[in-house]
Amino acid sequence: MQFAKRIEGLKPSDIQEMFKLAADPKVISFASGVPDSTYFPIKEMERLAGTILSENAEKALQYGATEGYIPLREKIAARMKKDDIDTSVDNIMVTTGSQQGLELSAKIFLNEGDAVVCEKPSYAGAISAFKSYLPEFVEINTDEHGMIMEELEKALEMKDNIKMIYVIPDFQNPTGKSWSLERRKELIKLANCYDVPVIVDDAYGEVRFNKEKTPSLRSFDTERKVIHLGSFSKTLCPGLRVGWVEADIDVLQKYIIIKQSSDMHTNILAQMKVDKYLELYDFDAHIAEINSVYKARRDTMIEAIKEHFPSNCTYTYPEGGMFIWVEMPGNVDAREVLMESIKENVAFIPGEPFYPNGGVKNAFRLNFSNANESKIKEGIERLAKVLKQFTD
Amino acid sequence: MQFAKRIEGLKPSDIQEMFKLAADPKVISFASGVPDSTYFPIKEMERLAGTILSENAEKALQYGATEGYIPLREKIAARMKKDDIDTSVDNIMVTTGSQQGLELSAKIFLNEGDAVVCEKPSYAGAISAFKSYLPEFVEINTDEHGMIMEELEKALEMKDNIKMIYVIPDFQNPTGKSWSLERRKELIKLANCYDVPVIVDDAYGEVRFNKEKTPSLRSFDTERKVIHLGSFSKTLCPGLRVGWVEADIDVLQKYIIIKQSSDMHTNILAQMKVDKYLELYDFDAHIAEINSVYKARRDTMIEAIKEHFPSNCTYTYPEGGMFIWVEMPGNVDAREVLMESIKENVAFIPGEPFYPNGGVKNAFRLNFSNANESKIKEGIERLAKVLKQFTD
Repeated sequence: MQFAKRIEGLKPSDIQEMFKLAADPKVISFASGVPDSTYFPIKEMERLAGTILSENAEKALQYGATEGYIPLREKIAARMKKDDIDTSVDNIMVTTGSQQGLELSAKIFLNEGDAVVCEKPSYAGAISAFKSYLPEFVEINTDEHGMIMEELEKALEMKDNIKMIYVIPDFQNPTGKSWSLERRKELIKLANCYDVPVIVDDAYGEVRFNKEKTPSLRSFDTERKVIHLGSFSKTLCPGLRVGWVEADIDVLQKYIIIKQSSDMHTNILAQMKVDKYLELYDFDAHIAEINSVYKARRDTMIEAIKEHFPSNCTYTYPEGGMFIWVEMPGNVDAREVLMESIKENVAFIPGEPFYPNGGVKNAFRLNFSNANESKIKEGIERLAKVLKQFTD
Repeated sequence: MQFAKRIEGLKPSDIQEMFKLAADPKVISFASGVPDSTYFPIKEMERLAGTILSENAEKALQYGATEGYIPLREKIAARMKKDDIDTSVDNIMVTTGSQQGLELSAKIFLNEGDAVVCEKPSYAGAISAFKSYLPEFVEINTDEHGMIMEELEKALEMKDNIKMIYVIPDFQNPTGKSWSLERRKELIKLANCYDVPVIVDDAYGEVRFNKEKTPSLRSFDTERKVIHLGSFSKTLCPGLRVGWVEADIDVLQKYIIIKQSSDMHTNILAQMKVDKYLELYDFDAHIAEINSVYKARRDTMIEAIKEHFPSNCTYTYPEGGMFIWVEMPGNVDAREVLMESIKENVAFIPGEPFYPNGGVKNAFRLNFSNANESKIKEGIERLAKVLKQFTD
């Protein structure tokens, strides 16, 4: 059988393969970027489930509008407004997880051969979604303040096929890095100047360990270049597959048309559940609770790394999110390290899938949200021993 | 802002627009292809909802495998086996509604400019999904036995860019027509001979009013050319967005990779609900119940059409599904008829979006599943009066 050209380069993502490995209870997994299910609001979800069906079953189980369930869209808009974002229900479309927002963005903006700018490294799931539209990837280096603007400007100046900039400004997947206010402002300036849409992936923005929030790119997006992708997967639960796109109304219209032929609409019952949860419970208090758990785990992991990792490995210090990024000396291949560490029952994700153009083998991603503190200590110690064999 | 080329030709589908019209309670709507929500198994779903969360909440709300929830995949395979289809759990991937199966099929098989064969007319939602990959459409006429094989063979002979054949062999949307056994066998022969995959859209196959089932295309698909798309939307409920793809394992692997970057996986809780429903209740009895309701509505609609429609309008007689297809004299434009009939508070779908290459204006689709018998009588009478103004 003959497949389309776009299929040739695609391989199953390491991340999904890691889910399978991580399923062995002996393995301490720092691999998948999964929230800890013991902190899902299960009791609350149980209470909701019956209520929605007894009040509203015919609507919950019937076909619905592609844009999504209006009360949920209203609540999402209200939450964004609290962050100084000037938006309304008409700017919000519910997506089947924010992964769908990435897929739709690529489909809407990228012809074959067009270029997409992303951080180097960037989220593997976004790279896969974009890759299936056969674009060129322009990777821009980052430092501790975010994307390096001189590199971005040079790329925008030199290349006339850049159709989309993709960024994860808060607690990035995979590095855990965040952008400074200044870099955010500079990005908006460049996007305005070169008229390029900016896809902002905000999957981790609310998983924040310090009190202060750096304003979102959308909050000073005066010329409406930002398309903001939000998610309930990290703060509420991922299984329901509920995220959203916030965009200018004319742009959102394209998302609606494309989503319509992709899956008609997102599961209504799931939308109603999220809506009801937001109505009845204190979502911010819930977020604060999980954030305090994840913060403690980050601290534990950082301490253990400091104590045990070889000194020629560097690592990031995330102020939120779920990930620490480790770089080893240039000649070390993270896949080989993984093969050894699996024997010691520790798993992580080698960094390669986070580089769309490949070529970087000496980095890996550690997740700290999904193992408790004693497992984190134990796992990092074991991993450190393996690392020493490779980096000595 | 600049959009990809594929976006230019896409307009919001009439069908979704019709949902909005049909929402006015004064309107008798034969427009949307929606099951009657009063027959959803609501009591059963309420009972399930609590059980699943109290037994299995952490799994239900966490990320899951792209392939889908194994027990549900097993039950789907078992149901297909009862229809003499040689399959297994490894051949099944759960989709976010069978609409997603259509989108993924186009993405997997169609390069820009490749051709897709479909029935003339064909399902508008499939046409939109395919169109977004910029193919050429080869429309093949049908008669009362299905697609006309001489035309199909000629197309396959003449054109070397046909990469996919899309058919709805049972109770087609929009015509309500079904294929004879002989035509099905001939199609498989041609698909084998020309090595072209056949996407079988089986959304309506179980909504059957007579006892005998014509064997599915998959049941004599010896060389594995068929990709079978199934759905729970018409038989259980559409709001949960649960459908499936059944395919050869190597082909299914492509669907899994592409779905992974599209939405990671389908809502797990929804999959568990369908699974639990199949485990605890008699799904076939439920299907028999809704089929008897829809059969009576079909009878009522056919009777009313016979009695009131102008004699120069022809119509199909569906043995299942949800639709009757009406053709008016060649000079009548169904959109103009709709504009008038809306004034009389009756809605239907003009036929044009069901022809990917356009050009046919004198046909329309009537849905009989979503209005009760007295409304059907009343609506058809009103519509007949409008039709007489146009066809006299």
